[in-house]
Amino acid sequence: MNDSQWTLQDAQAAVDEWISQWEEGYWPPLSNLARLTEEVGELAREINHTHGAKPAGDDEGASRIADELGDVLFVVITLANSLDVDLDEALQSVLSKYGVRDAHRFTPKKS
Amino acid sequence: MNDSQWTLQDAQAAVDEWISQWEEGYWPPLSNLARLTEEVGELAREINHTHGAKPAGDDEGASRIADELGDVLFVVITLANSLDVDLDEALQSVLSKYGVRDAHRFTPKKS
Amino acid sequence: MNDSQWTLQDAQAAVDEWISQWEEGYWPPLSNLARLTEEVGELAREINHTHGAKPAGDDEGASRIADELGDVLFVVITLANSLDVDLDEALQSVLSKYGVRDAHRFTPKKS
Amino acid sequence: MNDSQWTLQDAQAAVDEWISQWEEGYWPPLSNLARLTEEVGELAREINHTHGAKPAGDDEGASRIADELGDVLFVVITLANSLDVDLDEALQSVLSKYGVRDAHRFTPKKS
Repeated sequence: MNDSQWTLQDAQAAVDEWISQWEEGYWPPLSNLARLTEEVGELAREINHTHGAKPAGDDEGASRIADELGDVLFVVITLANSLDVDLDEALQSVLSKYGVRDAHRFTPKKS
Repeated sequence: MNDSQWTLQDAQAAVDEWISQWEEGYWPPLSNLARLTEEVGELAREINHTHGAKPAGDDEGASRIADELGDVLFVVITLANSLDVDLDEALQSVLSKYGVRDAHRFTPKKS
Repeated sequence: MNDSQWTLQDAQAAVDEWISQWEEGYWPPLSNLARLTEEVGELAREINHTHGAKPAGDDEGASRIADELGDVLFVVITLANSLDVDLDEALQSVLSKYGVRDAHRFTPKKS
Repeated sequence: MNDSQWTLQDAQAAVDEWISQWEEGYWPPLSNLARLTEEVGELAREINHTHGAKPAGDDEGASRIADELGDVLFVVITLANSLDVDLDEALQSVLSKYGVRDAHRFTPKKS
């Protein structure tokens, strides 16, 4: 049972609820984009440490990469919300482009 | 009813199924990261066209931004899969860091 | 003889002269940053094609990488100009940080 | 007098001399690219702090932006060296593409 698993729409709604607490609300698109660039940069550092030529010599790499991927996803969701983009639709559209027919009805095997 | 909505886990499984068709499978982390950099760059171009100082003068901006966000999300999922990262957990962890208590049980309002 | 070689200051002045022709002048910092993100993305695509997991199968890779590096440098110079940053000083400062003493007087061997 | 100003070629030679001290030498292209992504991310953070929606509330912004631009330039030079790209030629080529005729002989006004 995956009752506690979020859909992409749940995730977008949760981020929206969190941001809606703050008076300033969503940042302008170019500021959110700069933040995405910053977070992708932090992900790059961790991946380079763990899988590239910049060895970190510690065992925390995998966990830090997961954290950075979470941060990147959070900003992607924030940017999507601020621009009224439905990420489920956007992902289905990519999958269709890659030849996954009728992606929305396609039932993935559960991992 | 959100029956046709994917969870993040569904999305990861669908991308995995798609990639598993190909003999080469997942790219190494630094190659997937380079692809993420490429897709974020395409998103940057579209956001700059539509919301920045590089006006495109057309009405397709919103739709192209949605496509580029879908591409970015696809690569984030691919990278997560290749590194055994559960994006639902990673997102919950970010939300906890930001002070959303018990995020996994938190019920977002449906949009 | 390097008479025809530009200093970093020449390069900044040349880009300034080029941009000063246009009525809109320099873009705001976040727009120039988005353009840098876009150009780094194009560089990433070419490096991935030629040195990564996304093989392009052609012989033009090196030349396209040089072009993309030129585009990245052009935007770095543009951003520096728009923010009144002297790139020669900025580079000396990095080299000092890395332990190159008295970098400004240091005479590099000519390649 | 600009006697102490470096040409782009001097800058490439200085970085090469610095890197040649170390046994590991240049990183592979995808690792250097990841490092460029990391440094552009740090630049994005500073620009967002000072010119965007993420106000830092301090007076050090300009100096930190200069430092980050220096770091970005250093990695661009490193990447160019590792791939045998002459940045002066690459920049001339960009300027030609943008319509600056005979850029190499063009004498910029000194700032």
